[in-house]
Amino acid sequence: MNTHRNEKIFRLRFGTPFRTPAVVIDQWNSTEAFTQNNIIEIEETDNQIRLELALRNEQIVLGLGEQLGALNKRGRRYRAWCVDEPHHNPDKDALYSSHPVLFISGEPCIGLFIDYPSEMDFDIGFTQHDRIRITIPSGSADIYLWQADSLRESSREYLRLTGSSYVPPRWAFGYHQSRWSYPNDASVRAIVDKFEEHGIPLDTIHVDIDYMDGYRVFTIDEKRFPNVKKLAGDLLEKGVRLVSIIDPGVKIDPDYSVYREGIADKHFCTDDDGHPYRLAVWPGWTHLPNFLSSKTRTWWSSHVKRLTERGFAGVWNDMNEPAMFFTDHSLKRIEDAVVKLEDKDGLQPWDIFNLRWACEDIQNYRENFKTMSQHTDAGELVNHWDVHNLYGYGMTMATSQAFEDDKQRRFIFSRSSYSGMHRISGLWTGDNSSRWEHLILQMRMIQNLNLCGFLFCGADVGGFNDHVSPELLVRWTQLGALTPFFRNHSAAGTRDQEPWQFGETILSAVREAIRIRYALMPYIYSEFLKAANKGIPLIRPLAYQYEQPALSEFEDQYFIGDSLMAAPVHQPNARGRYVYLPEERWLMLRMKRWDDYQTEILPAGHHYVKADLNEMLLFIPENRLLILTEPGNSTDSVSGRYVVLGLVAEETELELWEDDGFQRSIRREDCNISRFHVEPSGRRVEGHSKNREVCFNILEPGRK
Amino acid sequence: MNTHRNEKIFRLRFGTPFRTPAVVIDQWNSTEAFTQNNIIEIEETDNQIRLELALRNEQIVLGLGEQLGALNKRGRRYRAWCVDEPHHNPDKDALYSSHPVLFISGEPCIGLFIDYPSEMDFDIGFTQHDRIRITIPSGSADIYLWQADSLRESSREYLRLTGSSYVPPRWAFGYHQSRWSYPNDASVRAIVDKFEEHGIPLDTIHVDIDYMDGYRVFTIDEKRFPNVKKLAGDLLEKGVRLVSIIDPGVKIDPDYSVYREGIADKHFCTDDDGHPYRLAVWPGWTHLPNFLSSKTRTWWSSHVKRLTERGFAGVWNDMNEPAMFFTDHSLKRIEDAVVKLEDKDGLQPWDIFNLRWACEDIQNYRENFKTMSQHTDAGELVNHWDVHNLYGYGMTMATSQAFEDDKQRRFIFSRSSYSGMHRISGLWTGDNSSRWEHLILQMRMIQNLNLCGFLFCGADVGGFNDHVSPELLVRWTQLGALTPFFRNHSAAGTRDQEPWQFGETILSAVREAIRIRYALMPYIYSEFLKAANKGIPLIRPLAYQYEQPALSEFEDQYFIGDSLMAAPVHQPNARGRYVYLPEERWLMLRMKRWDDYQTEILPAGHHYVKADLNEMLLFIPENRLLILTEPGNSTDSVSGRYVVLGLVAEETELELWEDDGFQRSIRREDCNISRFHVEPSGRRVEGHSKNREVCFNILEPGRK
Repeated sequence: MNTHRNEKIFRLRFGTPFRTPAVVIDQWNSTEAFTQNNIIEIEETDNQIRLELALRNEQIVLGLGEQLGALNKRGRRYRAWCVDEPHHNPDKDALYSSHPVLFISGEPCIGLFIDYPSEMDFDIGFTQHDRIRITIPSGSADIYLWQADSLRESSREYLRLTGSSYVPPRWAFGYHQSRWSYPNDASVRAIVDKFEEHGIPLDTIHVDIDYMDGYRVFTIDEKRFPNVKKLAGDLLEKGVRLVSIIDPGVKIDPDYSVYREGIADKHFCTDDDGHPYRLAVWPGWTHLPNFLSSKTRTWWSSHVKRLTERGFAGVWNDMNEPAMFFTDHSLKRIEDAVVKLEDKDGLQPWDIFNLRWACEDIQNYRENFKTMSQHTDAGELVNHWDVHNLYGYGMTMATSQAFEDDKQRRFIFSRSSYSGMHRISGLWTGDNSSRWEHLILQMRMIQNLNLCGFLFCGADVGGFNDHVSPELLVRWTQLGALTPFFRNHSAAGTRDQEPWQFGETILSAVREAIRIRYALMPYIYSEFLKAANKGIPLIRPLAYQYEQPALSEFEDQYFIGDSLMAAPVHQPNARGRYVYLPEERWLMLRMKRWDDYQTEILPAGHHYVKADLNEMLLFIPENRLLILTEPGNSTDSVSGRYVVLGLVAEETELELWEDDGFQRSIRREDCNISRFHVEPSGRRVEGHSKNREVCFNILEPGRK
Repeated sequence: MNTHRNEKIFRLRFGTPFRTPAVVIDQWNSTEAFTQNNIIEIEETDNQIRLELALRNEQIVLGLGEQLGALNKRGRRYRAWCVDEPHHNPDKDALYSSHPVLFISGEPCIGLFIDYPSEMDFDIGFTQHDRIRITIPSGSADIYLWQADSLRESSREYLRLTGSSYVPPRWAFGYHQSRWSYPNDASVRAIVDKFEEHGIPLDTIHVDIDYMDGYRVFTIDEKRFPNVKKLAGDLLEKGVRLVSIIDPGVKIDPDYSVYREGIADKHFCTDDDGHPYRLAVWPGWTHLPNFLSSKTRTWWSSHVKRLTERGFAGVWNDMNEPAMFFTDHSLKRIEDAVVKLEDKDGLQPWDIFNLRWACEDIQNYRENFKTMSQHTDAGELVNHWDVHNLYGYGMTMATSQAFEDDKQRRFIFSRSSYSGMHRISGLWTGDNSSRWEHLILQMRMIQNLNLCGFLFCGADVGGFNDHVSPELLVRWTQLGALTPFFRNHSAAGTRDQEPWQFGETILSAVREAIRIRYALMPYIYSEFLKAANKGIPLIRPLAYQYEQPALSEFEDQYFIGDSLMAAPVHQPNARGRYVYLPEERWLMLRMKRWDDYQTEILPAGHHYVKADLNEMLLFIPENRLLILTEPGNSTDSVSGRYVVLGLVAEETELELWEDDGFQRSIRREDCNISRFHVEPSGRRVEGHSKNREVCFNILEPGRK
């Protein structure tokens, strides 16, 4: 075991860990041991490292990024394991991504990142209420540990360690409409027309797997999409971009050039005999690119580049945990379980249960991942199991590489990820369902994802699986309007859930929520640029913002930047909700439309606030400023004046950062900075913007 | 269509409905049509009846008894279909019971009961936000409709129509410990000893399916339970009763007398050829008794009687939807889906998905139920599908019949039920999971179940499936202590969840919650007797109690009788919760132990109240009285004085109803009535009990 120190962060190296791209610092100065003060117990046994920490009653644990369970991870067991898990039921312990970092409150706060890209067990006060127990079933791992004065500082340290956020182009902050699948050119155009017809802003439309020719990655079905470039050009005139899904599995088909190239240049993961590993996903039998190889990533990136040049403005990486429907290996599990139905008389309940479980288990069967190998640039052959959680990251590195010479930022988001991938891509939380329970789940996830550096994230608005109800779509759109990535998406076979599918009342409520998002766009985009620039989260739990761990209990409220607290309604049939206001005074906006709202001044404490189905709540703490602007049809067409809002008792300032929406640099000096300054005495207000007229709508406590 | 009227309730008869035992009134006087005022649209087409009602924005819908979704059923789709559904995930639309009654708020409130014992669809504002659409896929049904001034009156009407509640013996209100399975005599004794050792009250211990000889119903495995009578006697000396599970499936085994009797006397449901219908459940292949036949019910009841005479104090009817693991018919579904694994190269994703779905679907396969027949006393052969939802009710009728000549009330509870069964049995909500989400689900269910007459109900405390966390067990026990049926139960293969399995802190919190339940026992039992006597719910939603439909939003609070409002903590890591207090002033008890609590006087409105993990909250509205008593080891050994508590501003009285705990009559004149009377001026208190010393602990508003 070697211990190295860099500033506040200690690295404990066990064995010879696989070198992941997670960490951006590689200077470790000190050898002082973190373990000497008894904060953590580390036990090394044969091929296993076990970490234990005591938890006092009041301690909370944030982190783990995309995971189930509450915002405070205490009281559950989690698994670090990227998996295509489509139901997000509470009995699951892993989703698509692995972000093995914990932020433990206390004096001092403890930060802990385990850079180990395979399966691990996190028992956070589950087996024992007062104990964290982490089991790494390997003798090799890098463990990073740090102390901090606050959760805020602890997350900051982690982002120093792993780097700051990817920044998408500005249009990616607009509203996205998606569907599995808009099947052809005409259907895409028809959807865009409907947005226009109903006056709903739209920036992006996504095409799901059916745009491909028989699910062959990097192909386009020419019958259904005869001219994507023309389609994309026509849409762009309306300010709408086209984004395409990309899956990693390459169909085994000798008539398919991508397959032939992959075989010829040995780009595929291999089986025990060194042959390309075979697994079934949507195209049927496929091979998986070995993204550990830089040669393969370059090959893949050239295809991504070529595909996007055909008209796609962004790339959506899916199925990259990787998902495996079945393999030759896992089919054996079914073969063994298939019952002899000729002798029905002798059939026992367990015979059928076993078959059922074999079938349930075959999709993404864990043992598959041990039968696949990948080689590294150094020529080393690695068992996929040992690097499993890096697969989506590798695919996304290849995607990112396609655009690295571009002058413009590109839109990339992925389903699977590992710590550090936040530097190159956004993320969505995968195949959720049209359930009220998934609204609160989304809020918990985006907060922990942001602490882990994934600033650009969001969940499928309206829910992917199952049928959405009209009310659920409204409330989810209102929530989505206050998340970085705002996309309505749904699965094949479910009820259509575009805004106009549920009658005029619902359409109107959904449209106004989307328009409020566009009214908030300058603020959200500016706060995003600032957060990415500083290496801090955009979406912030109350426990983070106020450095009070106990506030993690109020997990259905969060900050977006410094001036805006979201507290969306997320219960069925509710006409309001509880909210906790930690500061002395707040300005609440109850918005029916971006320019039609009631204001209310609320004191600190607990409140029940009303919000009808067509009303969105925004909370602005005293002495902070929010900006609204008239929404356009897309981020390209926003043009109205800026309205600066706030409840101001002392000198208050807001900086608004702007750029052209694409430029690579997000340094302060390369951005367009507008400063809005308000003094309560005499109501002096100041502020200008290069681009817009500015007006102020400032309240003072005690005045009407 | 014939329309008959009785008092406020209209009956609309379509076709020739199957006569269910749901309704107790059979005089219908008037022919005035309910539909004439346009409240409801009824459309009769070929073999289908469709009902539609408009919903205004502010209207709420209670009812449907045991169902998923919120307390207010609006915004979802439900199916009336009894099914063994073990996961209770939010995408399901049916559970074990069918209670097809709706209480719709408005002026007037509308009540609607569809006496139809097969599958129906309830679309309550799901497809259209402002519309209820009920589809009965049959030409024959009795539809009962009524108008009422309030939800309270509407539920009252329904209970006039279907009769008032079953009353279990008093000991059934104590704490029950269960497990799938305590495997033998020694393990049962050891568990009871542990309760004694840890000072935890206990009234009942349950033995699950493994007590039987190879799952043969009405047998006892003599190796594992050599002398149940002795065991039961020994336990009873400690105040503990033994309860046994009973499943309906009779194992096909020529050496088994119950099977031989069933065959000889034609007690079984039949297939299309008139042979006994064969299905597999725990024992392997079985036949199902035809409970539509009174002869079969009598036969079954004689076996129940004999079994209980061997030492069991109560009967737990399980698997009576009926559950079907598979049948010859449904195995075909697998046969058709089984893939040809010899030709793996040609395998497509859908081949495996289809097999998986076939296996998932085979358990309780809907189509099975169309291939089974039952005959009635009238000699009519009925397709089981058409009377499916009556199966559990029939089994429970047979069980109840076993004890109808007893002088004492008996303890019976069932998994499956249909409207009306509340007259003869309690109910538990089946195989939930150790999930926080199931705490709120339990609260929603017991409220709607009570409105539907099922006063004696509860959920498995700690959760049946999955592993419980220490904190979840504490919070669930605190909730369970405020539900009528209070049983800790868990599935084979899950973590042990008896109170002492999680260390001293958790044990102590669980023990004190159980002791608080015993301290509340006189009050809860008395309020139960009164509610059953009056034909009203014991557990009451705020919307019912205060006749304000909008209060259905606060679904995690409910009344138990008139003096006590429950508002348990049901979120992980929470140290308090929000509560809405509708009346002017309240007395809140924050209890660490039954005799160690803080009192707080709270005004009307919304509050956040603290509650540490070891604290339970009780809310008593002003001018109502609650009674506590020192908890004993079981309901048999309670003996301390009565402490009368309340916040009293005007003359206030509480009647306490008591009986011997077993007697059949619950008429007021046959009970022992104590009256506690408090006047604030001069603090005059009055009250006596035949059995106990009484002391008063009365607060007055404004005084300390």
